[in-house]
Amino acid sequence: MADTITFVIGGARSGKTAFAEALVSRSGLSPVYVATGRAFDAEMDARIARHRADRGPTWQTLEAPLDLVGTLEREAKPGRMLLVDCLTLWVTNLMMDGREIDAEADALAACLGSGLAAPVVLVSNEVGLGIVPDNAMARAFRDHAGRLHQRIAAVASTVYFVVAGLPMKLKG
Amino acid sequence: MADTITFVIGGARSGKTAFAEALVSRSGLSPVYVATGRAFDAEMDARIARHRADRGPTWQTLEAPLDLVGTLEREAKPGRMLLVDCLTLWVTNLMMDGREIDAEADALAACLGSGLAAPVVLVSNEVGLGIVPDNAMARAFRDHAGRLHQRIAAVASTVYFVVAGLPMKLKG
Amino acid sequence: MADTITFVIGGARSGKTAFAEALVSRSGLSPVYVATGRAFDAEMDARIARHRADRGPTWQTLEAPLDLVGTLEREAKPGRMLLVDCLTLWVTNLMMDGREIDAEADALAACLGSGLAAPVVLVSNEVGLGIVPDNAMARAFRDHAGRLHQRIAAVASTVYFVVAGLPMKLKG
Repeated sequence: MADTITFVIGGARSGKTAFAEALVSRSGLSPVYVATGRAFDAEMDARIARHRADRGPTWQTLEAPLDLVGTLEREAKPGRMLLVDCLTLWVTNLMMDGREIDAEADALAACLGSGLAAPVVLVSNEVGLGIVPDNAMARAFRDHAGRLHQRIAAVASTVYFVVAGLPMKLKG
Repeated sequence: MADTITFVIGGARSGKTAFAEALVSRSGLSPVYVATGRAFDAEMDARIARHRADRGPTWQTLEAPLDLVGTLEREAKPGRMLLVDCLTLWVTNLMMDGREIDAEADALAACLGSGLAAPVVLVSNEVGLGIVPDNAMARAFRDHAGRLHQRIAAVASTVYFVVAGLPMKLKG
Repeated sequence: MADTITFVIGGARSGKTAFAEALVSRSGLSPVYVATGRAFDAEMDARIARHRADRGPTWQTLEAPLDLVGTLEREAKPGRMLLVDCLTLWVTNLMMDGREIDAEADALAACLGSGLAAPVVLVSNEVGLGIVPDNAMARAFRDHAGRLHQRIAAVASTVYFVVAGLPMKLKG
């Protein structure tokens, strides 16, 4: 259980985060929310505040906009369960920071496969099921996100695809 | 059976409506098509006419662009089975009319959970699995649709996700 | 087995092609890659070259940007297994060439249902699960692709929906 990796993927407003939070809450372990999002505008700011209020005071919240691997290595302590929300925002941040996404994805997959001291649930947004985006940046983002999702799904012990709040188990 | 609620969600041209129509036709009950769509242009007009012709004369067709709850309460009579097509067009109409979407979604969920006198199949378009849209209105629509889908899936007895004409049962 | 038709549908960077290639490789039959893509720019060019290198020298590669039916009829020989990648690019090419897409889709479905001398795996991109596209051409493309997917799924013996590299079996 300690090194269990669960990957929850779904669309926007699919209920994927609520489903992931329920997995963590039901564990009885001390819940830690690892937020990758950074507020760039009022819309995002309000969303972050609303989610934090929804989780309630039992959750500890950490921010990891870029150093997700370091954060997991430091914070995955016995007795805890971590929820990373979400990988697509992490990819966005890495791209904005000019990082090499495939190398970062390798490092994250290696970290998750290394036997962390606490179970981790990672949430991400599937973005590849619409029309090909017009602009090259959006296409690059979609490609990076899709490749990362394949890697994380490959190292995860359990994978869920969430639609309308309902999980389909793809693995595990 | 009388108060059975079935939710069919899928992509554009996924065959979700044809699948839902087959559920209703197989029931042996008197089929009622509750259309939420309004023709704003020739493209939409042609689509509506084609669908009506495809269903054939055994189907009664009602229009409920805004008052879906009232229509269900009035028309869900014993011996009938209703097909609502589709919830995303209803959300579009509500937004254009300046309604409070969450309140409308609450009212619809309450109506569906209240024990209607006829079974209802609701069809909707999953729109949250592509790239984040550029404009704020499209993002708001996507959020409203996604939250509504979660609520309807929660009160439905059976939920299907349709891809390429093939249903995956998510619930029931 | 000779006339087995497998349809693999998934999002961009979902791992659908790698999954389809593995199906072909595991068959022990002589693998033939039927590419529908045409390089219009450097981005596409690089992608095609990378995929060809990834498959390795055991694969024979054919190009069928438009005449997919003729290619399948000629090349589906005993001892071979064919992989068509992908149907959405074929639809794009047909639209650019001014073809009647529904007639082409009928012809492809009839060809696949006619008992070819080799099994065929067809890969395609689900594009209907995002927001309705702004421009009419993209909407038409989405409609054509979705209707084609329904037809191919109907004649296929096995259908998979791939998310994050993981297949869900929809049929077969």
